[in-house]
Amino acid sequence: MSHSGRPTLAIAFHSGYGHTAVIAEAVARGAAEAGAEVISISVDTITDEQWAQLDAADAIIFGAPTYMGTASAAFHTFAQASTKRWYPQAWADKLAAGFTNSGAKNGDKSSTLGYFATMAAQHGMHWISLGLQPGWASTTGSEDDINRLGFFMGAGAQSPTDAGPEAVHKSDIATAEHLGARVARQAAIFRAGRTALAA
Amino acid sequence: MSHSGRPTLAIAFHSGYGHTAVIAEAVARGAAEAGAEVISISVDTITDEQWAQLDAADAIIFGAPTYMGTASAAFHTFAQASTKRWYPQAWADKLAAGFTNSGAKNGDKSSTLGYFATMAAQHGMHWISLGLQPGWASTTGSEDDINRLGFFMGAGAQSPTDAGPEAVHKSDIATAEHLGARVARQAAIFRAGRTALAA
Amino acid sequence: MSHSGRPTLAIAFHSGYGHTAVIAEAVARGAAEAGAEVISISVDTITDEQWAQLDAADAIIFGAPTYMGTASAAFHTFAQASTKRWYPQAWADKLAAGFTNSGAKNGDKSSTLGYFATMAAQHGMHWISLGLQPGWASTTGSEDDINRLGFFMGAGAQSPTDAGPEAVHKSDIATAEHLGARVARQAAIFRAGRTALAA
Amino acid sequence: MSHSGRPTLAIAFHSGYGHTAVIAEAVARGAAEAGAEVISISVDTITDEQWAQLDAADAIIFGAPTYMGTASAAFHTFAQASTKRWYPQAWADKLAAGFTNSGAKNGDKSSTLGYFATMAAQHGMHWISLGLQPGWASTTGSEDDINRLGFFMGAGAQSPTDAGPEAVHKSDIATAEHLGARVARQAAIFRAGRTALAA
Repeated sequence: MSHSGRPTLAIAFHSGYGHTAVIAEAVARGAAEAGAEVISISVDTITDEQWAQLDAADAIIFGAPTYMGTASAAFHTFAQASTKRWYPQAWADKLAAGFTNSGAKNGDKSSTLGYFATMAAQHGMHWISLGLQPGWASTTGSEDDINRLGFFMGAGAQSPTDAGPEAVHKSDIATAEHLGARVARQAAIFRAGRTALAA
Repeated sequence: MSHSGRPTLAIAFHSGYGHTAVIAEAVARGAAEAGAEVISISVDTITDEQWAQLDAADAIIFGAPTYMGTASAAFHTFAQASTKRWYPQAWADKLAAGFTNSGAKNGDKSSTLGYFATMAAQHGMHWISLGLQPGWASTTGSEDDINRLGFFMGAGAQSPTDAGPEAVHKSDIATAEHLGARVARQAAIFRAGRTALAA
Repeated sequence: MSHSGRPTLAIAFHSGYGHTAVIAEAVARGAAEAGAEVISISVDTITDEQWAQLDAADAIIFGAPTYMGTASAAFHTFAQASTKRWYPQAWADKLAAGFTNSGAKNGDKSSTLGYFATMAAQHGMHWISLGLQPGWASTTGSEDDINRLGFFMGAGAQSPTDAGPEAVHKSDIATAEHLGARVARQAAIFRAGRTALAA
Repeated sequence: MSHSGRPTLAIAFHSGYGHTAVIAEAVARGAAEAGAEVISISVDTITDEQWAQLDAADAIIFGAPTYMGTASAAFHTFAQASTKRWYPQAWADKLAAGFTNSGAKNGDKSSTLGYFATMAAQHGMHWISLGLQPGWASTTGSEDDINRLGFFMGAGAQSPTDAGPEAVHKSDIATAEHLGARVARQAAIFRAGRTALAA
């Protein structure tokens, strides 16, 4: 695939205490290794130029910590501002995916991932699932298995509430790398398909 | 029931353009008519005194417009701030309920109501459903039926995006009044029960 | 509280391979210890007499394994049959709660608990949340903490897919006992309140 | 695009009283007009040959009526049986979408569509949203607008509970045709992209 065919993948995330930023970096790393051009945007300080980068991206991966059963308020402020893109359906047919971190194993992270998918559907985007079987579901599994927490809609991470970003679990980092790589590959396929059908 | 037994019902809501405020007023009216002491709080300007009123209430009804598949960002800012109440589970065993308004008949209002219920569960609250069969589900139904939109988790309203608060539908207002009255009645029961068992 | 004031709590559950039955037994034990009269009903073999027991109960706790992102099909068959109770809203104002088991830590158990709450809302029931902070969320937590998986809407259990019912985790059993006790207490309050207000 | 490049789209649905079957036919019509080879499968009588057709399809669109807040039990029986495909992730990277019908305007149809998306994510599929702005959201809108009910995750239809399949609303039929065409187009893109990248 020529450089011109390289898909662009934007990560639009908010991190409260740095744990989600570590996951965002892992998603970026996975996507870059799979050949995507990656742009990481902290949505609480998003600029007009960065909004334009989202508009131009092949895929947007949303990320935020889960607080009180949903994404952080800073993420919701960004999502509400995306209404300007919603009216003209500017993000239609882009790929979307998501990741989240919280202190508890479950902690209603599924609600955050489901919300990301709902918002993406409002934008007319296509949702790319995690694409991994759950780790640690049998007696022979271990907490080091990829997707140790067993999410499907996106990547879920769990970090102790009393430890810093260095405590993000290596399995959760590997899971996030997988998500980035997966979305990059699917974005390459969609991009190549559009080019082929337009030819 | 003596005045001292009157339940206190707080409405914690955000309204973007005034439609949700009309629904909040209807919830308040229904609750007051059913005998509750009602406190209405705009969460985007909530004061310390109002936080204390929430802490003292028997029931809290959450309300917000649905934007991009969830409650407005202003509501989420309030909800995130409620984390201070979450740590000590200060709202445990209170009753909770919810209402929302959006431009579309559906418009992912269910996601907002489900989110309210999820947040309430994080607080250890008991969720009071709408308690109405759906209106307008048969050939003999009409748009003036109560619960014309057929929600169950809470009260859903639909207002045209190009009309002001005066355009809120009278069925949706009646549905909201019902919700307020229902929660007031259930709060009276829980309050009387606690008193009886403590006696 | 006199025997006549004792609340009746029904557990309506399906177990595929026995793990969910162990959780159901824990819920029953917790509820009985908290003073409720408990009825356990396997919904895949429910009789007319058992339907009548559900109709007479103060609270119904729903339980099923999570398969493919929702309750087992056997549970759904029961839930669909409950439509006969939905038309006359025969279960309105009863308390409801839920529990589920799956092989993965997360495994979309939240979807099953959310579905139980949605079905309960259709029946006009009041949803009782788990009422526990998440265990194991800090560096000093351990897998033996109650609510180790960090659910809020109900009780979530995780059992290895290659082990029998004896492998159900003791933390998940303790969490289920807590749920049963909690619903029993709330049912006692609600029942006493109705009696007091009717007096 | 040569015949060999034509995407295959399977519709896996259950219809209780014929309304959902009308929607399924509309989805099929839209997909066929957009160039897909379409296979319609009633999941309550699915054969081994039809399971093989699902395995071979580029996209699967799931459909069921919404009963008691989720898909019909017959659909859930099919979904549970798909566990055999889940273990080897046999449906990974296929496209998925969904539609549902109920008697009420809302009626928790969002829960059914959300469940379809959750199940699809468990299979590692990519979820294609409806891709339509909501109709009937302004004072100048009408019930004849496409997507009159304003769903985003998939196509939602509302049919009176006391009328037969001939009463399915023409807006809901148009919305379903749109969904079929949209999934067919995205499946063609995805298929062409895979071919291009493999070349």
